[in-house]
Amino acid sequence: MGKVYTYDEVSQHRSEDSCWVILYGNVYDVTKFVPEHPGGAKIILQLAGQDATEEYDPIHPPGILEETLAPECKLGTFDASTLPSVEKSPVDEDKVDEEAIMPLDHCLNMDDIEAVATKKMSKKAWAYYFSAADDLRSKALNNTVYSDILLRPRVFVDITKCDTSTTILGNKVNIPLFVSPAAMARLGHPDGEHGIAKACNTFGACQIISNNASQTPEQILEGAPADQVFGWQLYVQNDRKKSEDMLVRINALKQIKFIVLTLDAPVPGKREHDEREGKNVGANLPIRSAHQQGSSSTTSPDPKKGGNSGSGSVASAMFAGTAGDLTWKTTLPWLAKHTKLPIVLKGLQTHEDAYIASLYAPQVQGILLSNHGGRAADTAPPSIHTLIEIRKYCPEVFDKIEVWVDGGIKRGTDVVKALCLGAKAVGMGRNALFGLGAGGTEGVERVYEILKAEIETTMRLLAVERVEDLGPQHVNARAVERDVYDGPAGLEKLGMWLKAKL
Amino acid sequence: MGKVYTYDEVSQHRSEDSCWVILYGNVYDVTKFVPEHPGGAKIILQLAGQDATEEYDPIHPPGILEETLAPECKLGTFDASTLPSVEKSPVDEDKVDEEAIMPLDHCLNMDDIEAVATKKMSKKAWAYYFSAADDLRSKALNNTVYSDILLRPRVFVDITKCDTSTTILGNKVNIPLFVSPAAMARLGHPDGEHGIAKACNTFGACQIISNNASQTPEQILEGAPADQVFGWQLYVQNDRKKSEDMLVRINALKQIKFIVLTLDAPVPGKREHDEREGKNVGANLPIRSAHQQGSSSTTSPDPKKGGNSGSGSVASAMFAGTAGDLTWKTTLPWLAKHTKLPIVLKGLQTHEDAYIASLYAPQVQGILLSNHGGRAADTAPPSIHTLIEIRKYCPEVFDKIEVWVDGGIKRGTDVVKALCLGAKAVGMGRNALFGLGAGGTEGVERVYEILKAEIETTMRLLAVERVEDLGPQHVNARAVERDVYDGPAGLEKLGMWLKAKL
Amino acid sequence: MGKVYTYDEVSQHRSEDSCWVILYGNVYDVTKFVPEHPGGAKIILQLAGQDATEEYDPIHPPGILEETLAPECKLGTFDASTLPSVEKSPVDEDKVDEEAIMPLDHCLNMDDIEAVATKKMSKKAWAYYFSAADDLRSKALNNTVYSDILLRPRVFVDITKCDTSTTILGNKVNIPLFVSPAAMARLGHPDGEHGIAKACNTFGACQIISNNASQTPEQILEGAPADQVFGWQLYVQNDRKKSEDMLVRINALKQIKFIVLTLDAPVPGKREHDEREGKNVGANLPIRSAHQQGSSSTTSPDPKKGGNSGSGSVASAMFAGTAGDLTWKTTLPWLAKHTKLPIVLKGLQTHEDAYIASLYAPQVQGILLSNHGGRAADTAPPSIHTLIEIRKYCPEVFDKIEVWVDGGIKRGTDVVKALCLGAKAVGMGRNALFGLGAGGTEGVERVYEILKAEIETTMRLLAVERVEDLGPQHVNARAVERDVYDGPAGLEKLGMWLKAKL
Amino acid sequence: MGKVYTYDEVSQHRSEDSCWVILYGNVYDVTKFVPEHPGGAKIILQLAGQDATEEYDPIHPPGILEETLAPECKLGTFDASTLPSVEKSPVDEDKVDEEAIMPLDHCLNMDDIEAVATKKMSKKAWAYYFSAADDLRSKALNNTVYSDILLRPRVFVDITKCDTSTTILGNKVNIPLFVSPAAMARLGHPDGEHGIAKACNTFGACQIISNNASQTPEQILEGAPADQVFGWQLYVQNDRKKSEDMLVRINALKQIKFIVLTLDAPVPGKREHDEREGKNVGANLPIRSAHQQGSSSTTSPDPKKGGNSGSGSVASAMFAGTAGDLTWKTTLPWLAKHTKLPIVLKGLQTHEDAYIASLYAPQVQGILLSNHGGRAADTAPPSIHTLIEIRKYCPEVFDKIEVWVDGGIKRGTDVVKALCLGAKAVGMGRNALFGLGAGGTEGVERVYEILKAEIETTMRLLAVERVEDLGPQHVNARAVERDVYDGPAGLEKLGMWLKAKL
Repeated sequence: MGKVYTYDEVSQHRSEDSCWVILYGNVYDVTKFVPEHPGGAKIILQLAGQDATEEYDPIHPPGILEETLAPECKLGTFDASTLPSVEKSPVDEDKVDEEAIMPLDHCLNMDDIEAVATKKMSKKAWAYYFSAADDLRSKALNNTVYSDILLRPRVFVDITKCDTSTTILGNKVNIPLFVSPAAMARLGHPDGEHGIAKACNTFGACQIISNNASQTPEQILEGAPADQVFGWQLYVQNDRKKSEDMLVRINALKQIKFIVLTLDAPVPGKREHDEREGKNVGANLPIRSAHQQGSSSTTSPDPKKGGNSGSGSVASAMFAGTAGDLTWKTTLPWLAKHTKLPIVLKGLQTHEDAYIASLYAPQVQGILLSNHGGRAADTAPPSIHTLIEIRKYCPEVFDKIEVWVDGGIKRGTDVVKALCLGAKAVGMGRNALFGLGAGGTEGVERVYEILKAEIETTMRLLAVERVEDLGPQHVNARAVERDVYDGPAGLEKLGMWLKAKL
Repeated sequence: MGKVYTYDEVSQHRSEDSCWVILYGNVYDVTKFVPEHPGGAKIILQLAGQDATEEYDPIHPPGILEETLAPECKLGTFDASTLPSVEKSPVDEDKVDEEAIMPLDHCLNMDDIEAVATKKMSKKAWAYYFSAADDLRSKALNNTVYSDILLRPRVFVDITKCDTSTTILGNKVNIPLFVSPAAMARLGHPDGEHGIAKACNTFGACQIISNNASQTPEQILEGAPADQVFGWQLYVQNDRKKSEDMLVRINALKQIKFIVLTLDAPVPGKREHDEREGKNVGANLPIRSAHQQGSSSTTSPDPKKGGNSGSGSVASAMFAGTAGDLTWKTTLPWLAKHTKLPIVLKGLQTHEDAYIASLYAPQVQGILLSNHGGRAADTAPPSIHTLIEIRKYCPEVFDKIEVWVDGGIKRGTDVVKALCLGAKAVGMGRNALFGLGAGGTEGVERVYEILKAEIETTMRLLAVERVEDLGPQHVNARAVERDVYDGPAGLEKLGMWLKAKL
Repeated sequence: MGKVYTYDEVSQHRSEDSCWVILYGNVYDVTKFVPEHPGGAKIILQLAGQDATEEYDPIHPPGILEETLAPECKLGTFDASTLPSVEKSPVDEDKVDEEAIMPLDHCLNMDDIEAVATKKMSKKAWAYYFSAADDLRSKALNNTVYSDILLRPRVFVDITKCDTSTTILGNKVNIPLFVSPAAMARLGHPDGEHGIAKACNTFGACQIISNNASQTPEQILEGAPADQVFGWQLYVQNDRKKSEDMLVRINALKQIKFIVLTLDAPVPGKREHDEREGKNVGANLPIRSAHQQGSSSTTSPDPKKGGNSGSGSVASAMFAGTAGDLTWKTTLPWLAKHTKLPIVLKGLQTHEDAYIASLYAPQVQGILLSNHGGRAADTAPPSIHTLIEIRKYCPEVFDKIEVWVDGGIKRGTDVVKALCLGAKAVGMGRNALFGLGAGGTEGVERVYEILKAEIETTMRLLAVERVEDLGPQHVNARAVERDVYDGPAGLEKLGMWLKAKL
Repeated sequence: MGKVYTYDEVSQHRSEDSCWVILYGNVYDVTKFVPEHPGGAKIILQLAGQDATEEYDPIHPPGILEETLAPECKLGTFDASTLPSVEKSPVDEDKVDEEAIMPLDHCLNMDDIEAVATKKMSKKAWAYYFSAADDLRSKALNNTVYSDILLRPRVFVDITKCDTSTTILGNKVNIPLFVSPAAMARLGHPDGEHGIAKACNTFGACQIISNNASQTPEQILEGAPADQVFGWQLYVQNDRKKSEDMLVRINALKQIKFIVLTLDAPVPGKREHDEREGKNVGANLPIRSAHQQGSSSTTSPDPKKGGNSGSGSVASAMFAGTAGDLTWKTTLPWLAKHTKLPIVLKGLQTHEDAYIASLYAPQVQGILLSNHGGRAADTAPPSIHTLIEIRKYCPEVFDKIEVWVDGGIKRGTDVVKALCLGAKAVGMGRNALFGLGAGGTEGVERVYEILKAEIETTMRLLAVERVEDLGPQHVNARAVERDVYDGPAGLEKLGMWLKAKL
């Protein structure tokens, strides 16, 4: 461990046969790990023999290095003075012109926030946050569906008071707008998920921590008061033991009030912006998309496949190891053994699945309708469709479990419309990430400040004082309703299915 | 009072502790008033120690200075010769190229008028007139909804005669197109609201004077014949006494035939164009939007709030002091005590509220369906929606009170379509303001000249001689009807509500 | 008469008090005629004292000069050698670059034809042909409505034969596509209406001659075989005698098989392109639009009106003198007295009027559904709407009279769709005019050549051999049907109306 | 035969009276053949007296030269050294910049593939592949109709396995996505149809060989294993003997499992891109479109027609000789005499024709719903419309014959949606051609690689393991259903028709 390596020594080891990297001033031999790397071998080999810290840091939570590598892999420390002097690239034209960027206080809406973040963040972070599946149609629909719903303002009612507080699974929050699980916050800003947590504390908002957070749960919760409301997102791993170990840690954190089991992305969607950016890591290497990798088709001939090549995209790294064999029948009982926390199922997109979920109460206490921000199946329905579908086919679901939605929130009016149509709470992912990218904790606070004011204005103009008084009479969703699924309810089939499966 | 101040003396006083301003050649000490300024302290402090006349004048009616400041605040007069000589900015490129502007006579439609006004007015005036809430969707809908309604021209009928005259609450007018209350006319042109009044007189049109007019009612009515028809818009103030005093003045003006009680903007919507322009007054100061300020949430943590900071937007100044606690039960009786004039309720956006209003006849004699020009709740329905909604759910309203609409009028066909669907009269706000901006009184006259000719052509092509003969058989509104609210009428609930509230 | 005038002499007379013009080498004193000029005094005064031939010729049929002016107004001839030499403007950059224009044979569709015509014609002619009312919405709808109708091609049927011939009021034509009355053909090309007639002869097509043709009926029909099918459009004049005299001439022309009484433009719509072009004649003169002029409101205060000022637009000239007092009850009997030809009523836009028309058979033998090419009431329905409306409310009309449509035809598929939905024949106006503009008679032939080939291809792909076999089963008009008028049929009202009026 | 010709000798013969051409180093006298050339005389005369190999080769299959010309037409060989030296045009700016073209591996979707192919192919090939009828509305609809159908992803189901294999008329394929008959593959790349066949073999996909392939069936099938699945497209020729001879050859090829009888283009649609490109061959010659040529109207006066002039477009050449007199009653029995292979009818576009086809089982075993890639009748319905129409009017068709669709496939989601709505298999034409153009066999493989991965991802996100489990419950097609034909089923008429015809 005491050995000190020079750049020349390290740079010899840049092949599959011997692969070293420098991380945080230490030198590691990762040769054995290369073929197992969840993100693919290629991405490591591209950085072999070099200092990979800048690449590695923002997308890996601390501790995972020690967890993953045997102690003997740590060879020693690196003598930074041996680094070849790099002529600082004059191409600093790429450097952000801070002057030209709108200050946070001048940002009036989410588009302003995104524009600022886009200028400040790395291309890679932007591509990961921005991207969605295929042609971005679900992402686009997520936004436009709210515009198509009209408000029905009432007048001549005292609107001097306005209270945006509500409860989430019984926990008091000051605003019905939570942060949906969104991975890799440190890609956008070093404040990371902990920065989001601090902003949520300021506004009394709930945060659901991503399974793929770039900080540990303990780091994220540091300093959070006992009554701050967090959820924890679970992607079940093929290696169930890893998930079980994580649940042990989560169960110990009193601010985490519930588990969000993610079901909407058993394989990653095809996010082309993310993939195109991934290729820039090694531009002359063939791109294989994350979603191709994710497939384990029994029939694909794919003659070019071989080894564990990764696309270099952020998504491709994240999805490695995620289990695809979850079922109603087996996963919920297993989960019950490992946590007493209430379960929220994320990613339901049909009334049929919402109905089944409601049969699993009280273990399941909520569902988060979501098309994964348009990042899984393109042309999947916006969650507002699913919400209306439930109202239409099986409204009893609302009585048994909480129904939340996320996807496409840009305005306070969007939040209020979802609440009117039956959502108990509303989530946002990209807004929080772009807020973070635009200004760290302060950026996320600005996001909440803007949206809270917009929510209040909307409630006042609807002449509604409290969140629980918002109802379908406050909106005209007719332009959306005519596009919502209208086929057979499939309840008979569902009954048979349930008999067979449960 | 006799004291004469130099620029050097005045310019010492530019802080919260001592704040002087020059207005109309006089020097005032406004230190005590700063924290009470409806438009926020900031906007005054930015002009402290300077001549603020240019900023102050177009948005404050005469007399308000004396009304607001104690006599001792007027310190004396200002010696204009002590002003530092300003090198006239060569940036007079901003100066309007009068040559390039289309003459009024060449303007053929409202877009031409708006284009000319946009070139002639200050950026600030333009931003205030142009702006609407959030993403301008209601503003856009206001326009497109008329295009989606088709005319049903009839033929082989004698159309040599065409009479656009009608009555408004029993008062004869020559055209069913009135000027909706639109604030701050002098921002656009020194002719101000009085200029609009003169144009209305020429065309026998009704004008509703804004509560936030930049001239006094007496000034506006100067020279108007006794049978010219005016309404007066009332924003009830938190300080009811102010409103009562104003009603005394209004009651005395015989041309004012009715009161328009505005209900559609108990808090201002979020008008981003207006807010962005506001920031230019002090570009390095944080912007807090008018609609944030307007909120007095009981729950907002807003840690940055403090003092009475204003956004600098025109709207922020105007809404200060407006009461948010108006109710059917309390406000109408109070109003009955202070005026015998018939009441028109402005800003109704649902058939439920229209129905309730009709129960208050004969005190209430009309309702003005309006989404406040798209400036209050974005995605609020265009008034044509509400008109159709009333036809559908409670057509008896038309028998009890007059129903007017405004918002989005660009063409004579728009006016005629609204009349066909049941409106007794149709209002326009921006057209009058842009007409004023384009050419003062003459500009407003050109607006009326164009639209009157268009209305006549449309009536002739429909083979209708008189306004009262226009009916639903003359339009095909099917493309709009399918988007109109189709939910439960809520009449049962309404019954209970009425029992409880009335 | 023998007197010869010099330029200096003539150019003295350029006022209302003494107004001379040079036309076709003669000098006329038109002082008395100026106030009566249907197109307004202004347009003459602008050309006073000069040679007006170039302006006058293309929009006035021969003979009208002699008809209008007393013999003594013709003062003598003009000595052309006295014209001041004009330095030929080097601004011949405006001259058309013949090289850059697509040859007729390369034109594949109506857009190509219009593009070529637009390059070749004068700005004024283009503006007149292109323009439509207000915002051109009906014009746009006329085109898009056809795209929204889908074809239903049938297969496995022998399609070696295809016959596009049909009959129009019993007269055999080779193609169901006629030329709608379109005014002022010589504006676009010196071949004029006669050129169109020659092309129609080549293709066995029917032509309806515009009441405002730029050639006399006799000129247009010159050389036409006896069985060539013409209609003649009648705009009834306020001075009925003029119309009666014209009918005498028309009755004598054996190729004219029917009269088309135009009802859709009792006043002209507001065609802004045409009006804007009109102003260029005298750029510093105020524009009064044709449709303003057309109005004779009893209530308009219009303080600026006075004298007979014209807008200079082509439409303003044409509409002067047109009667607005036509009625079912009075006009048809009058017409019966002056012609035995069958009557086709043009411009019907509702099923109600179609139904009434059918009651006037056999005097009335056809109706031409038309919104006047979108040039009358903007947002009037496309004729396909009216056609579907008739199918829905009173299909018996099809059994009593022929129903034709025009407006927006761009493709052979458009023609076939209209025929499928019940039209007996289909008219086109702009196509013929643009064809003429693009290449005179040959241009119109190219238009017919293209469209005939498209019609045949469409019929073959529908597996239909003869025009009369096309039916509603060959199209899917569902996307249009949902926008068609769906209100009460108004038949009861209609009954009462009929009792009262007939 | 032994004679050797010089350039000077050959170049004498460039008229209709004596027309020689050089092909593959030989000199031919084609004078007699000129008037019979299916593609028109003009296109040959333009190349008369020159080496036409470059033009001739990619659009004619080998052997056709010998088949068409009498042996004596081959005059001898050409002495290439006598060719005048051509100064190599410096206009090689047209040469493709290979550097700037995205490598195949970086292509992520069909748009990338098309973009690469567009850069690599000749303008002529691009125009032929890209073009569609009239205004390309059906082509556009083919794409957008899929976007309007939403997916209904199901969750909490084990999706580790995914199997895209299925059967086509009982033959096992690994993917339900076949290559639709698409002509002239060598226009795009020398690998031609054989290259497509090799890619299909790699992915276990079915290929339907175009009747107008640029290689012989034997060449295309060279090396294909016995169980590779091919269909053969038949355009019946006016000269039935030619078709019968071809069927003899086809019957002998064991990999060809079925015949696809094409019915959707008895005459070619009007493909303007293709026609405009055709004119560049001889820019100063009049263009007569293929679809005009195809017409043999009994009534057309077309005075300019004469001789056998061709438009020079690829389509015009191909359609020559195609029979237009096919019928249910005569053609199927004839076909039964010449092949025992099952028949698939291509180009059905209504439920009526689908229903009739099902009555012809078992000779007819499938139908391919198709609007010919939007290349026949513009505004013909996308095949998804017809699929839904069959579900609605006569679902029994699905039980009797296989229903396939093609047109507009861009994404794996598109394929899956068609399967959900009842298609047994899905075809693509342009994707394969553009894949070929982008990189020959490898390009087509890349197309299959991308789409197979997308299909698998979509199936997994729908939680469906096998193709046969996809069903209507997995999609929400409501936005499309409302545009599908809704008229009378016409079954009664159909019954009469059937009685009469069968």
